[in-house]
Amino acid sequence: MRRDLITLDDLTETEIQALFGLAEDFLQRMTSPDHPHRIRGRDPIAQDFVLATLFYEASTRTRFSFEAAMLRLGGEVLSSADPKTTSASKGETMADTVRVVENYADLIVIRHPWEGAVRVAAEYTDVPVINAGDGGHEHPTQTLCDLFTLQREKGTLKNLNVLLWGDLKNGRTVHSLVYGLARFGARIIPMPADGLGLPDHVIHRLSRDYDCIPIDKKDMGDTRVLDELPVDVVYVTPEKPHQRSLFTDVGEVEDKHLRTRLPSNALAKIDACYVTRLQKERMSGNEAGGEYPMVDAKFLKGRRYKESSVMHPLPRVSELGYDLDDDRRAVYFKQAAYGVPIRMALIAAILKLKQGILAEEPPHRLHPVYRERTLPCPNPQCVTCQESEQRYLWPRFWIVPVANSVLLRCTFCEHEITPALVGTASSKTVHANTSRLESLPTDLVFFAHEESARQAGYRFESTPSGGKYSSSK
Amino acid sequence: MRRDLITLDDLTETEIQALFGLAEDFLQRMTSPDHPHRIRGRDPIAQDFVLATLFYEASTRTRFSFEAAMLRLGGEVLSSADPKTTSASKGETMADTVRVVENYADLIVIRHPWEGAVRVAAEYTDVPVINAGDGGHEHPTQTLCDLFTLQREKGTLKNLNVLLWGDLKNGRTVHSLVYGLARFGARIIPMPADGLGLPDHVIHRLSRDYDCIPIDKKDMGDTRVLDELPVDVVYVTPEKPHQRSLFTDVGEVEDKHLRTRLPSNALAKIDACYVTRLQKERMSGNEAGGEYPMVDAKFLKGRRYKESSVMHPLPRVSELGYDLDDDRRAVYFKQAAYGVPIRMALIAAILKLKQGILAEEPPHRLHPVYRERTLPCPNPQCVTCQESEQRYLWPRFWIVPVANSVLLRCTFCEHEITPALVGTASSKTVHANTSRLESLPTDLVFFAHEESARQAGYRFESTPSGGKYSSSK
Amino acid sequence: MRRDLITLDDLTETEIQALFGLAEDFLQRMTSPDHPHRIRGRDPIAQDFVLATLFYEASTRTRFSFEAAMLRLGGEVLSSADPKTTSASKGETMADTVRVVENYADLIVIRHPWEGAVRVAAEYTDVPVINAGDGGHEHPTQTLCDLFTLQREKGTLKNLNVLLWGDLKNGRTVHSLVYGLARFGARIIPMPADGLGLPDHVIHRLSRDYDCIPIDKKDMGDTRVLDELPVDVVYVTPEKPHQRSLFTDVGEVEDKHLRTRLPSNALAKIDACYVTRLQKERMSGNEAGGEYPMVDAKFLKGRRYKESSVMHPLPRVSELGYDLDDDRRAVYFKQAAYGVPIRMALIAAILKLKQGILAEEPPHRLHPVYRERTLPCPNPQCVTCQESEQRYLWPRFWIVPVANSVLLRCTFCEHEITPALVGTASSKTVHANTSRLESLPTDLVFFAHEESARQAGYRFESTPSGGKYSSSK
Repeated sequence: MRRDLITLDDLTETEIQALFGLAEDFLQRMTSPDHPHRIRGRDPIAQDFVLATLFYEASTRTRFSFEAAMLRLGGEVLSSADPKTTSASKGETMADTVRVVENYADLIVIRHPWEGAVRVAAEYTDVPVINAGDGGHEHPTQTLCDLFTLQREKGTLKNLNVLLWGDLKNGRTVHSLVYGLARFGARIIPMPADGLGLPDHVIHRLSRDYDCIPIDKKDMGDTRVLDELPVDVVYVTPEKPHQRSLFTDVGEVEDKHLRTRLPSNALAKIDACYVTRLQKERMSGNEAGGEYPMVDAKFLKGRRYKESSVMHPLPRVSELGYDLDDDRRAVYFKQAAYGVPIRMALIAAILKLKQGILAEEPPHRLHPVYRERTLPCPNPQCVTCQESEQRYLWPRFWIVPVANSVLLRCTFCEHEITPALVGTASSKTVHANTSRLESLPTDLVFFAHEESARQAGYRFESTPSGGKYSSSK
Repeated sequence: MRRDLITLDDLTETEIQALFGLAEDFLQRMTSPDHPHRIRGRDPIAQDFVLATLFYEASTRTRFSFEAAMLRLGGEVLSSADPKTTSASKGETMADTVRVVENYADLIVIRHPWEGAVRVAAEYTDVPVINAGDGGHEHPTQTLCDLFTLQREKGTLKNLNVLLWGDLKNGRTVHSLVYGLARFGARIIPMPADGLGLPDHVIHRLSRDYDCIPIDKKDMGDTRVLDELPVDVVYVTPEKPHQRSLFTDVGEVEDKHLRTRLPSNALAKIDACYVTRLQKERMSGNEAGGEYPMVDAKFLKGRRYKESSVMHPLPRVSELGYDLDDDRRAVYFKQAAYGVPIRMALIAAILKLKQGILAEEPPHRLHPVYRERTLPCPNPQCVTCQESEQRYLWPRFWIVPVANSVLLRCTFCEHEITPALVGTASSKTVHANTSRLESLPTDLVFFAHEESARQAGYRFESTPSGGKYSSSK
Repeated sequence: MRRDLITLDDLTETEIQALFGLAEDFLQRMTSPDHPHRIRGRDPIAQDFVLATLFYEASTRTRFSFEAAMLRLGGEVLSSADPKTTSASKGETMADTVRVVENYADLIVIRHPWEGAVRVAAEYTDVPVINAGDGGHEHPTQTLCDLFTLQREKGTLKNLNVLLWGDLKNGRTVHSLVYGLARFGARIIPMPADGLGLPDHVIHRLSRDYDCIPIDKKDMGDTRVLDELPVDVVYVTPEKPHQRSLFTDVGEVEDKHLRTRLPSNALAKIDACYVTRLQKERMSGNEAGGEYPMVDAKFLKGRRYKESSVMHPLPRVSELGYDLDDDRRAVYFKQAAYGVPIRMALIAAILKLKQGILAEEPPHRLHPVYRERTLPCPNPQCVTCQESEQRYLWPRFWIVPVANSVLLRCTFCEHEITPALVGTASSKTVHANTSRLESLPTDLVFFAHEESARQAGYRFESTPSGGKYSSSK
């Protein structure tokens, strides 16, 4: 079985740590003492392999980091910097493109403006695919690189205080990082620019998928410390329940979380400041504007920041002061450097040039899949909403039970929708999606609104007949 | 002597079969049982060589297939995805470009929007040149790949029934294929979209150059079979006269052809359906529009199509159903895969890394060349009509005698013109081009119209003096 | 210590000759007798290295020549044909870009529209940087290639008569060449198109930095010869004072130069004609227009041109006749070919794969540096005038004493400015910049005009107090 990397959820924590170990090994063997974070020379284990980069959005930096990784492994590269003007403009679909390119390359790296497009690519080819950014959705190798940097700087990720600074609303980088931090038990301290906080869907998902929950100011420990730190909330993952069942009592879990308090003085020291730029290109017109804060030497003067690693996914604009460039706490260029060994490790593992890094099969997904074609993904940027792709592609969702309704999460772009109606195909009836789902009938159906249910021949009942569903599983 | 591939006529049938044999050899040695059509690994016979791709029109797919072929042979690549914005925009000519690039690369692959441009390139460099598509003219490696796919699927090309579907008017791919099929004796069954049939010049050339002639409905054999197959004409090449003289009696040959009938039941089985998309980018405004037919599972339900290989040069738009993707008859992705071994074979042969594939010299051309600068090529897309190229380049034609006149075919773009007047320089007289040419005076001249003849100091005679020309050869 | 090539002044004459020797060695070993100027095969001494090309202006030709050189040395290439649309468009600075890319490549080749941008790049990275053209400023590898071609054709550069033809005003190529010719003692014979002569700053710099001075018509020797050669001036470097002090009496040196006369009959033979095209892309609107002269077979009929090598940096437009292409004097395609061995030599030397070519340290610069931020560079194309770069970059000048004032030359774009006012920080006074500087106070300050001096708290004195400065050095 082949392994891809489309979202960070395609890797277990164990696998991520194994990749970090392999990256560390490359760093030990292929750097000089002068620049211990910069890979030089070649370890030609991939010399019989060809990697293709398909960048539907230009990004010299990201493309170079993948291509450099492949070249340092002795492999070769087919490079496409901006295929916007090629077959896609003749109407070629994602599925067709990868089924052609798989004949040319052993591994395909894709950047695409449509969210979920790289997942589609992976489903239609039998060579491995790596996501180098799909619109506002994910950029998992950036997150691997961020986590690796943090762990290498600090020795661990567990209980690190990571301050997130700037535009936390629009950046895929920061969303992916937040999930990654939660998985490894770091504490997430949002310090957003005005109006650019973490979106609700990210906060909810932190809790639902990664057991990471908000701690209010009153539960944050020493209040003297907090007087100087203008944060309203910190997200923590108290302990990792590795085998959390889908049907444990969500209410109970949440109650447990809400009782969690941070140890006194837990926030006295900030381990890392992760700075992000304003994502103008992903913003609607009326969002931009207002002062965007800057992290600079002055900001970092406080005791709390004495050992803070300053990180940034780059490129920066004006949110990160050039006066930090020579500061020992600045690690953003090192962070960029680590992109090479991390991607070397990933490529080597995915091409099976290094054994024992990745399991045969991808990790088991928590949620069951809904495949009925009864409602579209609500995200207009989703690959399933693009006309060209609809010739062969249909919406598909994960079923995510929450406190008193059921969410559908698109398996491509991971946007969430709360369908208005839920029912079963066998009963041909639907009711309002307002209660918890105790079990999953195999013929479950969802509708976005009454009109579409009626058109599909369903009858509306004001309450579920016979109370709750019983599992037919 | 160096070999190029600008049009398929640059290769003999023997050479084409030798290339197919070499491609087969690569497939045998460099594929896995899981994907027996997909080259993996490297056979580093070209490791001292550099191939340059000069794509004046972006085409990631075609560029990748050449570059992948070179990388799989262990060679290196200089890649230029879209040089529209470089030296050409400073006014550099094709001739100058290749005379610079020949210093950087051992082999140059060119795609260009001007018809005939790649032939010009080949004439001005002494490294080999491969045409990766020159406007609406030729794309010979695609044709090699199409023929190889057909032959590999069906075991032979001889007498195969190949149905051509869609836009047969505007596609260079389909025109090149038609000539290739004729050369190997396959039967060509056009099934064009409304108003998009094979152009007259293609049909005439089929007959003139490749002895392939139309069979009318009444001569097609079993009429029951034909009731279900809505075709009006089939083109066949009854036998291949390898050494046909220019001056055999054309009328006689044509008579012989017209007497040809297909065997009864010859069309009961379609061996391959070659589907093409609407070539919007090569169409004038008023051509587009109207229903474009689709080949899908429903279309292929008939007995006749039971063993039909479905081919498509890709990208497809909506003319080929996605419901065929898993059908065992669909070979279009295999066809794309074969692009690699075919191009590997071509590169290896042209670089003389494999001996005995190509002869020392290119095949002898049937027609003599007319070099007087008395008339331009009528094709505005021809390289000879471009202002920048006219600094060093003049029109040049092949002289093609037909039933009762003489055609000139541009040696660059291969468009044909029937000049109004023909004469000799020694007599300084011209007459109407309305009779068959029995021999070729060395001082033959042509004019597009009376005005230009008069300006050149020629006198018009209403009939050829002394009857027909006698050969001065 | 690492070596860069940003301007030709980054190399000593000894180093340039060593590079030529290495290029000659590659030519001896890696060409065939048929094409003794064209590198084939590979000498894999750089096989552990990766070169990145960052072209912010597309130039397939120049990019290919660098990439071909690297591939012929067995190295690998990261290629970026036009990064205009990437991080730079998100506001990334030159400094940040190279500090990221240095992690991917061992050597960075940059073309950029801003003058001085590549110098900035070199200052912010610790991998070597080569300038492949920075706006109208320099293109030093082209100049190396030009000088190498001349020397290889003629055996020496000393006292060669080199005629410069065409647009001598706007071409960076021709300016760089002029300095290079002066350094090696060739005679420079300008024959500009109407209104497109060598700019004053180039003429002044020839004299100031390279001791190359103008010879008037009356001092040119045999007047009969001159009757046929419509030149007004020739620039010669009588002898090379290798250790000229900054504070020798400039007036005296200039007097000595002005007494120089050419030997009788010195210009009877033109060794080379260097033809350049009209640099439309670097012209303001009203410059273009008028007849642009053409060098062709007719022009070169005179005895004087019998052995003239005809050179051109290419691409040509219409200033160089195609009728010369087969003339034995035409060396422009050879000149393009030499780009590969020259760049191979440079890459091999800079990567220290060949020892003894470049000294450990770059050549000592003649002029001291002025770092106070009291005035901007007057060149709007200068990298220091770009908003994005001003976040971290300040103007910096070399102090160039001339006859009766002090010039400042931008250390990035090398444009010159004569500041209106000069003074010292300790005295807080300034005076008019109208006398020669005999020594350099460490606290020297300059202002562009009185207003800015006053704002900085300086007082104006109509004459320097205490006469001339005395050196505090």
